[in-house]
Amino acid sequence: MATLVLLRHGESEWNVKGLFTGWVDVTLSPAGEEEARRGGQLLLDAGVHPDVVHTSLLTRAIRTANLALEVADLLWLPVHRSWRLNERHYGALQGKDKAQTRAEFGDEQFMLWRRSYDTPPPPIADSDEFSQAGDPRYALLPPELMPRTECLKDVVDRMLPYWYDRIVPDLAEGRTVLVVAHGNSLRALVKHLDGIDDASIAKLNIPTGIPLRYELDENFRPLNPGGDYLDPDAAKAAIEAVANQGR
Amino acid sequence: MATLVLLRHGESEWNVKGLFTGWVDVTLSPAGEEEARRGGQLLLDAGVHPDVVHTSLLTRAIRTANLALEVADLLWLPVHRSWRLNERHYGALQGKDKAQTRAEFGDEQFMLWRRSYDTPPPPIADSDEFSQAGDPRYALLPPELMPRTECLKDVVDRMLPYWYDRIVPDLAEGRTVLVVAHGNSLRALVKHLDGIDDASIAKLNIPTGIPLRYELDENFRPLNPGGDYLDPDAAKAAIEAVANQGR
Repeated sequence: MATLVLLRHGESEWNVKGLFTGWVDVTLSPAGEEEARRGGQLLLDAGVHPDVVHTSLLTRAIRTANLALEVADLLWLPVHRSWRLNERHYGALQGKDKAQTRAEFGDEQFMLWRRSYDTPPPPIADSDEFSQAGDPRYALLPPELMPRTECLKDVVDRMLPYWYDRIVPDLAEGRTVLVVAHGNSLRALVKHLDGIDDASIAKLNIPTGIPLRYELDENFRPLNPGGDYLDPDAAKAAIEAVANQGR
Repeated sequence: MATLVLLRHGESEWNVKGLFTGWVDVTLSPAGEEEARRGGQLLLDAGVHPDVVHTSLLTRAIRTANLALEVADLLWLPVHRSWRLNERHYGALQGKDKAQTRAEFGDEQFMLWRRSYDTPPPPIADSDEFSQAGDPRYALLPPELMPRTECLKDVVDRMLPYWYDRIVPDLAEGRTVLVVAHGNSLRALVKHLDGIDDASIAKLNIPTGIPLRYELDENFRPLNPGGDYLDPDAAKAAIEAVANQGR
């Protein structure tokens, strides 16, 4: 049996502004920093002691990990980072205002881009100010791997190799693994873990800053389907709030 | 040719109090946080772009790395940590007041413990409140590796395997390597790099928060002996201040 803990980064500066973020590297808001610290306190209070940490390459996830680990006195843990844990690439919508996009393209198109499993937004141009073309952190990604837009299915496809090749081996050694990432990369992982079908995943929201613990069997499948939030009441309230976003 | 950048952590809470620290895991003071950010700004201003980071297991070095990398927009870099980059273990002196120790044991013994190459302080008892026996971050160190006191020679001996096995391979791939560590683990490394003899190393001080850049030849020896501080004037002033510490 192994323990997996998922932590979604806290509020970012662009969450506050209501902009589509995706791979744009914005940092945490002060409230997001507090969420991260609370996440660390929840780990401490629950006696959950990760042995290894995995994060995306995006500052808001890395800072969430660092702030949480500092509170839990675990900054010294080994950490691995990968673009495969990044947020969904939001294509040409990156940097756009959410409410304005909804008004411009209508409810149906808006919800399709946000929640459909396999419809990506239009790709972003390399010349767009919010493109990641030329970002040194992706210098080792050949063009065919570098996303210019993604739907959730694309995220599942590029995330799973990291799950199988980097996270599962840690779990197989009996280590407690903490993954600090994003709404959609964590939804992709939860979809896999809990075997959620392509339609139902649209309704799944993961709250920010509240560690979600899975106990996994010998096939790396949950003994506790859906996982357990370390603060269930706060998770319930946050899930309801996210579901109302953009309404 | 490869580039190696050394960064000593900023002022810690116990530097302020004048206590021997060693392996005790105290955090940075607010001034130390500022030093770390300045270190990151110096990297940015000099156009030095590390590809990989190595730190000790101690919070003050890890936070220095994190704060510097945040300023330099490099939080996403791969990072490796090891006890082999830790500060010198200060034995039974850990947690003791420096001025009081000097008064109690006299100038000669005090300077021997601080600066002699091969005379360690008395070992710390496992029951001492400032011992690291039982600290989970050293759980994988068998008893014969776990220090209870160290002289600088001991630090050289336990640091060099990390240099040869983990840092040199990064340099051999042409990567620019940033090492964020401590006064004595960095002195140990500089002693090796510059071929400083056992007596002369006593006089070498490395200032905090100022990146020290070495360009290395194909044998991983400096093309610029002594290295170049990214802020030479500040380094000179700080080296003089450290030399006067405890006077």
